[in-house]
Amino acid sequence: MAFKPIPLPGGSRYPVVCAPLVGRTREALVIEAAAVAAKAPDLLEWRVDFYDEVADADAVLATARALRAAAGGCPILFTRRSSREGGQPIVASEEQVVAVYDAICRSRLVDLVDFEMDNDARHLEAVREMCRAAQLPLLLSFHDFNATPSHDVLVARFQNAQALGADVAKLAVMPRSMDDVLTLLAATLSASRRCEVPVVSMAMGGLGAVTRMCGSAFGSAMTFAVGQDASAPGQMPIAEIGAAVDMLRRAMGVQPGDAAGA
Amino acid sequence: MAFKPIPLPGGSRYPVVCAPLVGRTREALVIEAAAVAAKAPDLLEWRVDFYDEVADADAVLATARALRAAAGGCPILFTRRSSREGGQPIVASEEQVVAVYDAICRSRLVDLVDFEMDNDARHLEAVREMCRAAQLPLLLSFHDFNATPSHDVLVARFQNAQALGADVAKLAVMPRSMDDVLTLLAATLSASRRCEVPVVSMAMGGLGAVTRMCGSAFGSAMTFAVGQDASAPGQMPIAEIGAAVDMLRRAMGVQPGDAAGA
Repeated sequence: MAFKPIPLPGGSRYPVVCAPLVGRTREALVIEAAAVAAKAPDLLEWRVDFYDEVADADAVLATARALRAAAGGCPILFTRRSSREGGQPIVASEEQVVAVYDAICRSRLVDLVDFEMDNDARHLEAVREMCRAAQLPLLLSFHDFNATPSHDVLVARFQNAQALGADVAKLAVMPRSMDDVLTLLAATLSASRRCEVPVVSMAMGGLGAVTRMCGSAFGSAMTFAVGQDASAPGQMPIAEIGAAVDMLRRAMGVQPGDAAGA
Repeated sequence: MAFKPIPLPGGSRYPVVCAPLVGRTREALVIEAAAVAAKAPDLLEWRVDFYDEVADADAVLATARALRAAAGGCPILFTRRSSREGGQPIVASEEQVVAVYDAICRSRLVDLVDFEMDNDARHLEAVREMCRAAQLPLLLSFHDFNATPSHDVLVARFQNAQALGADVAKLAVMPRSMDDVLTLLAATLSASRRCEVPVVSMAMGGLGAVTRMCGSAFGSAMTFAVGQDASAPGQMPIAEIGAAVDMLRRAMGVQPGDAAGA
């Protein structure tokens, strides 16, 4: 495998196993972060749309600080998943969300920032500039919870994410058949060759399990696994995904800890 | 998953994990069979082309009897892999090989019989009639150790195996890129829908690892894993393949032991 790794402090393994944190309160999140970090994922994703105080930048910063301490050195991906793309409905306005992103970027209490590529263009540009100013990598994402777009539409999505300034381009789709799963894998392979930035993909639900286990063989640099509670349909336990990823690394000749994933 | 399971006595799990036996002597084979059966594969494949006395029907029968005892109830697949398709060179003539198949079928000391679909048509017909007379299912196979034929050629191969009387149709190819792996998986999915018999497929070597771990999601009813010694490039340990198969069953909603694989 000679695919591109996710930019994280100190380098990253290929692929990165990322576990979501979905607590609603600071207390719950700190307990969850410690418990999930103990399962040794490569990355924790704070799904801040689950957090009750998401509209309050000061509360978000204080909780980010507490998560940093609880994570025991595990890097953190900061994500407000829009309800349009499968996230939790939140009370904050988009302007408040962008202000929260600004505060989080300035704090550098996280290591990677997710923002949907279909967000308002001004907001996307603002978040991109915040990330650049803070030297934080930006992951631009797109989620289709209803269907799987065609191969060419998916490849164009990956390329568009890069054109919009992504340091990582991520697509998640809902397959209706195993043909859709093959479409997602083929588009990931194409995009991994055409894009300069690492790509991440998954087909959700039971049909997509193979993409969570083996997507790295087709160029997907990150896979999401359940630490304590799932954040999307079809996520599998960290121990299982970690085992699948390791056996694929051995079979395909990638050494554990290989930062370049070559 | 609603794919067809391999016909074995008492039914079979979907997919079947099959481990090869490659000993050269009766003594070595008995020790190997006991050691491999202890790892709980669903099927043992006796690769009789590795066996020193393959040309001697009486010796083969006596060893088959010893293997039956050593296998502890694990069903046995009988395979003489032709050297044209990656097997060991043997001293026996094709007529001697067919005579050995005849003796083995009559003995019913095995549960499934593999024969290459590209063997001489008269020999293939003879082996098919032996299997029918003994009520043993016949697996017709094709192996390309150099490349991966196109999607349509692969689907036609599966269909041709069925037309020639196969109860199971198996194809193994050598991928030169991950595109070839996708071709193999797509062809397997197509063939699993078009064929009435179960299909089995794998892409060999490191690139094909995903097909050994997850081919069942695309309709492949059997995967080969290493008990003690590999018989083809890229085979992975039983414990790893068993774990991958189990996590896929859970994620895709197939219960362990589900005979129908529904």
